[in-house]
Parts: sequence; C-alpha cells; structure tokens
Amino acid sequence: MTSSSRHGRPPFDTTEFRKALGTFATGVTIITARAGDGTPIGLTANSFNSVSLDPPLVLWSLANNAMSFEAFRAATHWAVHVLGADQEELSGRFARRGVDKFAGLEIEDGVGGVPLLRGCAARFECRTASQYQGGDHLIFIGEVLRFDRDEAAPLVFHGGKYAHATRRDPPDMKPRSAHLAGSFGEDFLGYLLGRSHFRFFAQIRPFLDAEGLDDMEFYVLSTLTLKPLLTENQIAEGMAGVLDANRQRALDGLVERGFARRTADGYALTQAGREAAIRLISAAKAIESQVLERLGAGDAAILKTTLNRLLGVVDQRAADVLWEKDEGERER
Amino acid sequence: MTSSSRHGRPPFDTTEFRKALGTFATGVTIITARAGDGTPIGLTANSFNSVSLDPPLVLWSLANNAMSFEAFRAATHWAVHVLGADQEELSGRFARRGVDKFAGLEIEDGVGGVPLLRGCAARFECRTASQYQGGDHLIFIGEVLRFDRDEAAPLVFHGGKYAHATRRDPPDMKPRSAHLAGSFGEDFLGYLLGRSHFRFFAQIRPFLDAEGLDDMEFYVLSTLTLKPLLTENQIAEGMAGVLDANRQRALDGLVERGFARRTADGYALTQAGREAAIRLISAAKAIESQVLERLGAGDAAILKTTLNRLLGVVDQRAADVLWEKDEGERER
Repeated sequence: MTSSSRHGRPPFDTTEFRKALGTFATGVTIITARAGDGTPIGLTANSFNSVSLDPPLVLWSLANNAMSFEAFRAATHWAVHVLGADQEELSGRFARRGVDKFAGLEIEDGVGGVPLLRGCAARFECRTASQYQGGDHLIFIGEVLRFDRDEAAPLVFHGGKYAHATRRDPPDMKPRSAHLAGSFGEDFLGYLLGRSHFRFFAQIRPFLDAEGLDDMEFYVLSTLTLKPLLTENQIAEGMAGVLDANRQRALDGLVERGFARRTADGYALTQAGREAAIRLISAAKAIESQVLERLGAGDAAILKTTLNRLLGVVDQRAADVLWEKDEGERER
Repeated sequence: MTSSSRHGRPPFDTTEFRKALGTFATGVTIITARAGDGTPIGLTANSFNSVSLDPPLVLWSLANNAMSFEAFRAATHWAVHVLGADQEELSGRFARRGVDKFAGLEIEDGVGGVPLLRGCAARFECRTASQYQGGDHLIFIGEVLRFDRDEAAPLVFHGGKYAHATRRDPPDMKPRSAHLAGSFGEDFLGYLLGRSHFRFFAQIRPFLDAEGLDDMEFYVLSTLTLKPLLTENQIAEGMAGVLDANRQRALDGLVERGFARRTADGYALTQAGREAAIRLISAAKAIESQVLERLGAGDAAILKTTLNRLLGVVDQRAADVLWEKDEGERER
C-alpha cells in the first residue's frame, strides 16, 4: 500500500495523488459551450457528477489554466455529453490542444446555442447555476434544462486508462451457486470455455458437413490459411493443444481430398482448399456477427479482451509463433 | 433516444433523469466520520470526484434528508474510501439504513479520529474545506490530508447496477489488427474460444493420460458427475456440441474400463469412475486457480461473467437441461 501524508503540510507527491484519485472509476464526458464570438468550444472531462434531483443539478470542474477557461467561465449555458464505449476517439480528440475539435462532426444547436454532439450515451443541457472556486479548479454547477439518453455501453476511465465496464449480473441469469461437490460446476472455467467453444462451434459444423470436413480437419485447414506454407511444427504450434494424435490423420485427410498438398518443406493449401476455407470463413464470420450482436457491442469487446488476456496467461509462448515478421500489417 | 425538456420548467421525470445520470459510470465510495458523540458514521456514495491537485481537494455530495446529514455537516474531518471489486457487500451494507454498519469491521483511527475501513482501493482523509448548497444536496469539499492506495480492481456503478471494469488494452499486447483476408484472424471469436479452451485443456491432459482417458472420455466422465444417472439424451445435451460421433465410443470405453456402467435407464459412474473423476476435478480446479490468479481477480470475474452471457446467447436451451429441480441448492 502506497501512503502519503500531509500532516505537516508539505505538498505531497502529485503523481501519487493522481494515482490514488485514479482508483475511482468514472465515465467520460465532453463539455461543450460557445465562446463569446460564437466559436464552439469543448473539452473532455471526467470530473462530472450529479448533485441534486430537484432542482436537477450537475457539476464538473475545470482547471484554472485550461485554454478555454475564460470562455467557459463566461458561458451562460453548456452541455455535458456522457460518452459511450465506441466514442474513445472523440474523447481523445476533445482532450487534445491545437486541433479543430469539431471538424467533420455533425452538430446540433442546443439550448442557448450550445453545440451538441451526436451518438452519446446521454446529454445534459445546462444553464450555469453557480461557480465555486476549488483550489486550482473552478467547479461549475449547472441546472439541467433538457436531457436525453440512449442505451449504450459506457466509456470508462480508471487508473489513467480507458476501460470497459459490464454489468455484474447477467440479465437473464441468477448468480450461479458454488461448485457441486465432486463435479464440475457451471462456474469452472474449463467448463465455461469448453461449453462456449463447442456450442459456438456447433453452429459452424453444418458448414463443415457441407464440405465433407470433420472438426479436426477444419482446425488444420484453418491453421493452413495463416501462411502460404507451414511446417509440421508450425501446424502443431498453431493448433495449440488440439488433440495431437488426430492431427496427422486430419492432414492426411486434407491431402487426400485435394485441399492441401505436402511439399518438401511442409504443407500448403491447394486452390480447392483455399476456396473451401474462404467459404467456411465467411460462414463462420457471419455466425460470429450474429452471436456478437446478440451479446452486445460492449460485452463482445470485453469478452475478446479478457480471452486475449487469458491466452496471454495460458499460452505465453505459443501465440506468437504463427504471427511473425513476414506479415507486415501486424505489429507485436 | 429518451428525451426530456425543462424549457417551460415543469419538473421533469425524476426516474428518467436518474437513468440519464446513471449512464455516467462511477466508482463506489464509503464516506466515514464521527458524530458529535463519537459514534462512527458512514454511508455509500458515488457522487465523489476530484477537484484540485494543489491544494489537493476532493468533493462529494449528500442529500439534505439523509439520516446522517447533520452529523456530516458538523464534522470537521471525514474520509473517502474507494471500494475495490470485492467490496460490493460493504457497499450494500453502508447503503442500508437501520443496520450497525461497522459491526465486525476492523477500524483504524484516522486524522481527526475518523474511522477508517480496511481493504479499500484508496482512502482519502480529509478536513472539511467548504460546503456549498446544491439543490437538495450539500456539496462537501475536503482538503486531502493523507491518502493511501492499493492495487485493486475497482467496484463500478453504472445504470443503477454494480459493474465490472477492465482495461481496454491488454497490458502486454498491442491492439490486434483486423482480420487477414482469407484467414481467421486472432480476433475471430471462434479462434479465441477454441484456442483458450484447448490451451487450458492441454494443462489438464497430463492428468487424463495418467488415468488412461482421452479427451472425449473425459468430457463424458465429467458429464456423468452431474447426476447419479443420465440418459443418453441428457448426456448428448450435456456435451453440448462436442463431436457426436465419438460420444458413443467414449461411453463404451468408460464402461469397458469400469468407470461407468450402463443401466436400463441410462449411464452412471461406478465407484472407480467417481474416484477418478474426483482426482481429475481436484487437479483441474488447482490448474484453474493458478490460471485465474495470474489473470487477476477482476478479469477472472469478468471472463466468467461474459462467457456465461455468451452461453446465454449461443446456448439458450441446452444449458438448463442438466441443472434441474432435483438440485435443491440451485435456483434458476
């Protein structure tokens, strides 16, 4: 535990103080207004919070040395835009200096002429109700005159970084009970991974059947799409623990069916194999799209992020083998 | 998009306003102080935010009609505890009325005698610097005299519910590029699920080898642990898309090896089968613990939550088949 004291009042370590403040997760907002000359102004802030329900008041604070400080201080109206998970780029843009923040954005005109952004999780159009000095920041309290809201996964800031957030309780599931003694509970990670994998895969299997491929042949075929030519070792690495004993049989099956050919250096797809792979890939990606859509964009991103991290933990060495330097668009 | 206006100033729908405010994710804090008679007081608040770095100021706000309003208003010192992901119970406790909130908690004495809680993501010990009326709430501005911080996944509140948060970018991975044309990219969900499953499973396989079981026999054995007796249909449902053709062979293998027996109504484990299952389950759970520990408690919980949700999407019907009414501890 890092600890700092201001008992004797030397100003304590600002970096540490920032880090401690960063443990408190927040959403991300963009605050907009118009300067005296009508120019739209805006900045990214996570110091937003609600204050009062009746009257409806919200607050945020702005550093005294911010570029737009004087313009915001003079503004009679401003708007708070709560950003959704897909608006990280917008957050970054409004956090930078010296760029035309509004370039190319569709703007609506809000109460008091305040420029309103689109596609946000919520917007609060406010009239400046009070301003209080708070150290090196000014606290703006606004009366909410109008607001709107969209269903959207939130953009979250925590520990100095953007974060995903997801509900703790699945909407249509009660919390799962503990492991049953002497069996794998539904909560066992291996169960969840295996079941998720096999259920997802079961939706792809009809397309394999249509190509006359079994699961293992499909795994090998998919692995062969990764590079023009793969050695047996690379195939083994690429298949990452899929039952070893069946790999050779699947390779032989693909060669026999004319989908792959054996060369002096390893294995490669034939034209027919590549065409089958492309058909299967587009079918599988269509299924993926449906599944991810039903899961929702926020959870889909979270699932992929955490699976990637899981692979980093269970799979430290193997994941990189197939993604080497000869693929220019990949930076790792 | 839900939209409400206060142009003509009828008080607008408070429920809708709350929902709009709820789109802004926040951490969760507990604020503590001592009443005039020395009694420790505390409450859960998510209206916390930072104000100023120099001097170090933070703020939060409290409803004028809160039970402890007068005591907090009179307090010269208070402390903000930022809660970690594992402190949801504490959050709930301090949000309730009429309970002894501090019962059984280990308390430290902070600056000004303020009771400090343990195990939090961060703590800020403050002196009341200012108080401002803000509608139906009072805004407390505190000068931070001392703070400490622990590395901890945050407890998050969003949309009226507790949420998980996780970093957007894996710490040791750059963002992955888009799909390679004509191949499955690392970003394809099927790839992530398959690879995660097989890599995780590869760590369990040595224990199967020791029992003389192959993968499919292990899946069947695991399924058989779920109930004293399973029909072939239940086994098929329980295996959820694991290659159908091999299931019967695996069942026969287990029977042959004396791990399962066939009855008139279906299949059941023998004593030897149950003992083997228990050995494998404890090995697998030990591996799970190691993996989840390396992943971190926050991400582990998120991974399980989102996999459960994925199963709700790909697996709506099948998941319930094996978890029926005869298991009293399960409520679904």
